[in-house]
Amino acid sequence: MSHFTGHHILSVNQFEREAIEKIFTVAHSMEPYARRQKRTSVLTGAILGNLFFEPSTRTRVSFGTAFNLLGGEVRETTGMSNSALAKGESLYDTARVLSGYSDIIAMRHPQAGSVKEFAEGSRVPVINGGDGANEHPTQALLDLYTIQRELEYNGKGIDGLHIAMIGDLRYGRTVHSLSKLLCLYKNIHFTLISPAELAMPDNVIAAIENAGHRLTVTDHIDGMVDADICYQTRIQEERFPSQDEANKYRGRFRLNQTIYTRHFQSKTVIMHPLPRDSRTEANELDNDLNSNPNLAIFRQTDNGVLVRMALFAITLGVEHLVSKYEHDVVWYTNKS
Amino acid sequence: MSHFTGHHILSVNQFEREAIEKIFTVAHSMEPYARRQKRTSVLTGAILGNLFFEPSTRTRVSFGTAFNLLGGEVRETTGMSNSALAKGESLYDTARVLSGYSDIIAMRHPQAGSVKEFAEGSRVPVINGGDGANEHPTQALLDLYTIQRELEYNGKGIDGLHIAMIGDLRYGRTVHSLSKLLCLYKNIHFTLISPAELAMPDNVIAAIENAGHRLTVTDHIDGMVDADICYQTRIQEERFPSQDEANKYRGRFRLNQTIYTRHFQSKTVIMHPLPRDSRTEANELDNDLNSNPNLAIFRQTDNGVLVRMALFAITLGVEHLVSKYEHDVVWYTNKS
Amino acid sequence: MSHFTGHHILSVNQFEREAIEKIFTVAHSMEPYARRQKRTSVLTGAILGNLFFEPSTRTRVSFGTAFNLLGGEVRETTGMSNSALAKGESLYDTARVLSGYSDIIAMRHPQAGSVKEFAEGSRVPVINGGDGANEHPTQALLDLYTIQRELEYNGKGIDGLHIAMIGDLRYGRTVHSLSKLLCLYKNIHFTLISPAELAMPDNVIAAIENAGHRLTVTDHIDGMVDADICYQTRIQEERFPSQDEANKYRGRFRLNQTIYTRHFQSKTVIMHPLPRDSRTEANELDNDLNSNPNLAIFRQTDNGVLVRMALFAITLGVEHLVSKYEHDVVWYTNKS
Repeated sequence: MSHFTGHHILSVNQFEREAIEKIFTVAHSMEPYARRQKRTSVLTGAILGNLFFEPSTRTRVSFGTAFNLLGGEVRETTGMSNSALAKGESLYDTARVLSGYSDIIAMRHPQAGSVKEFAEGSRVPVINGGDGANEHPTQALLDLYTIQRELEYNGKGIDGLHIAMIGDLRYGRTVHSLSKLLCLYKNIHFTLISPAELAMPDNVIAAIENAGHRLTVTDHIDGMVDADICYQTRIQEERFPSQDEANKYRGRFRLNQTIYTRHFQSKTVIMHPLPRDSRTEANELDNDLNSNPNLAIFRQTDNGVLVRMALFAITLGVEHLVSKYEHDVVWYTNKS
Repeated sequence: MSHFTGHHILSVNQFEREAIEKIFTVAHSMEPYARRQKRTSVLTGAILGNLFFEPSTRTRVSFGTAFNLLGGEVRETTGMSNSALAKGESLYDTARVLSGYSDIIAMRHPQAGSVKEFAEGSRVPVINGGDGANEHPTQALLDLYTIQRELEYNGKGIDGLHIAMIGDLRYGRTVHSLSKLLCLYKNIHFTLISPAELAMPDNVIAAIENAGHRLTVTDHIDGMVDADICYQTRIQEERFPSQDEANKYRGRFRLNQTIYTRHFQSKTVIMHPLPRDSRTEANELDNDLNSNPNLAIFRQTDNGVLVRMALFAITLGVEHLVSKYEHDVVWYTNKS
Repeated sequence: MSHFTGHHILSVNQFEREAIEKIFTVAHSMEPYARRQKRTSVLTGAILGNLFFEPSTRTRVSFGTAFNLLGGEVRETTGMSNSALAKGESLYDTARVLSGYSDIIAMRHPQAGSVKEFAEGSRVPVINGGDGANEHPTQALLDLYTIQRELEYNGKGIDGLHIAMIGDLRYGRTVHSLSKLLCLYKNIHFTLISPAELAMPDNVIAAIENAGHRLTVTDHIDGMVDADICYQTRIQEERFPSQDEANKYRGRFRLNQTIYTRHFQSKTVIMHPLPRDSRTEANELDNDLNSNPNLAIFRQTDNGVLVRMALFAITLGVEHLVSKYEHDVVWYTNKS
């Protein structure tokens, strides 16, 4: 068992570099199970409370799948209408009650700070699956894990990397959290590309500078020839004051194969937190990139399962037992 | 197998005292599994149909968890929009079809009598998880089980107990059912505290009197010094003819540590069917009671899992096999 | 493994007669598991992605139950609000992402052609659970399987059968698909009974004629005395241009015991895709038929589980392993 066993995972701020490396080592060891080369029953009998008070299909299913892949069961809730919260129940009470129904909880809630408040009442470990505009630590971890894995194939590590972040850096929660995690590493070059109105918030800029990293702020994609990572984002339309305001920026930073070839080196890895907006007027990441081997966006979501498996295993103190409860996979698969 | 094996559980009226004692003995034997000292796979391969045609997060998850803790799988439905019922299907047809998909069914439905009607078409046992204003037998059983367990710690039994029921005794379904169950016991003293307009219905009063129990009806909390149980309720605002009507009673019977100390003995157990309304204007059970060791409200919901496990085990005739299919729990837990 | 292993199941058009016979043989071999004479853990550790972007309680639960009966786990989604699709994500992207979370997918979606489009992006096999007015192949297979089983009891096979299809043959998707499957068999007599406005579409008529089958088109139930199967339908009110238009046909073709006795032979099997509309003004299949042993409507839905188990087993290449992973059922059941 590690010092994370039994603890909540609420924020990227709670991690030291050593902890992240531990998580990533465990995540990597989960690959054979996710790829169906074998299966494990280490958590058979354990129950995940997958509490999505705000709907989010893919994050919810990803958590559930990760728990199933370890052999555990999942009890779920989606949405908040008709819930006890609507009858005036406090988050503390909800947490006391629902934590009696599972061994661990993954929770998403529309209100910033709510997951932390819930965790204070919970009798089992809580993993934050997104609390409004505040935090979504498992997304940041899967992004960073993807960076590490992709660069490894290129013979590099995270230290010394050059990352270009593009688009809505103001409302895009994922670029904030990823930047904070990168502050734990050495000698990073950040190129932040956005319209001035959608610039990275000051506190993130300050964190990058305090960590001694190199920072380039610009509003155009140029001279990216030595970027290792191109992290493209979606305009977070739902967080803008109005649709008109959001429309101003739609399609402002598009990436397609032609633009990629002109501005980036041939091995620059393309990332995106997904979903990408593929409607003509937005189209921030063109489908013509789908055949580009450096498009890592679906490897990102696959890695999300590995990272969530790792967090469950570590939090429940079974990371060293996973292979002990290993079995053959007897059904057809083309994932391995 | 007991004489309950294979039978529906629809109403508190179907139980004799002996049956209840059997259920409670089995519920108690479930504690090691709920506390994760061990796990059981006795129902591995069995399927619960968890049919919530009316949403109720905690009751739904509690049933599902109870079934998972016995090793079984859960298939669920929540809500009724777009269902076949909306296309004119009878409850009989729905029951015939859905009972083909599981080994046992837990069902909630907004309409009184609907669960019984459904059960008549079902080919597997049905457990009533609440049918409108009518019945919610598993809540009554978990309340009574909690009373038994809490008094046991005080060296007492249910016979001879003094229970104060407070608040909305008219619309509060749980106090009706609990009162009926207590009629199976001896020499109970009921103190019913409510505004006259929210008084306990006549048929419950009659049942209490017919059982030869002692009855005190009042509209203020006083002289409760020998009460063993203080059962506080929420004003069931959603059942009132109007919100204005409900507002008249909001906050009328508040309980906090000061009031508790003044009116009750120091070992009076505080119960509440939950959710409690913690908004300032209601606040029927103040958060300052959270550190009072006699506040049993979260032990109630935990006991709900035990009671539901017992009902599943007895109805499916495996109560004597649970420990035979026992395994070690290998993950971290602080519940034991 | 068969040549279906690893392939999508999108349309009834993809099947030859030999394939259907294979599916039915496997479906039949699933009976002991569905009837709880034994259970199997062949798919323990496998995950079904049960993606219902359009709600359909019984089809969704039937797929989930079928997968559970093989020992597998189910991750689900219902509805489409708040999904990534609403944020402009393509079905291709949704498929790439969600197929990373499971071993096989069952999918329903309101838009014709959507499941095929999704399947093109999916990295795991996809089974079509209904794509709008287009296809619902598992319903057609369970209907045909029911016909085979029911006629078997009467000492007949599908070849040479006389089937009467009654009611809304225009909007009723199931009669179209079933007719296409019957075209793979020999010497079928179709009697199509509907108002002219709700007649079977021309392309289905053409397929029946091209297959050399006998065809009778009429608007009244008469002379059905040698029909083996009476396939009654519900007026698909939700697919009509208006409710007024639909109301014209409500209750136009009712079947009850008296009508059955007058027009059909005593062993004619009564089928219906369900739900049947039991409201007085519709009532296409009267409840007085519930005690008629030839009413096969609930055997149809039970057979749906068998057919879906077969499709999962064949697609995942484990149909020959099911009995190898067999266990005793230790709980009460009255299904066997």
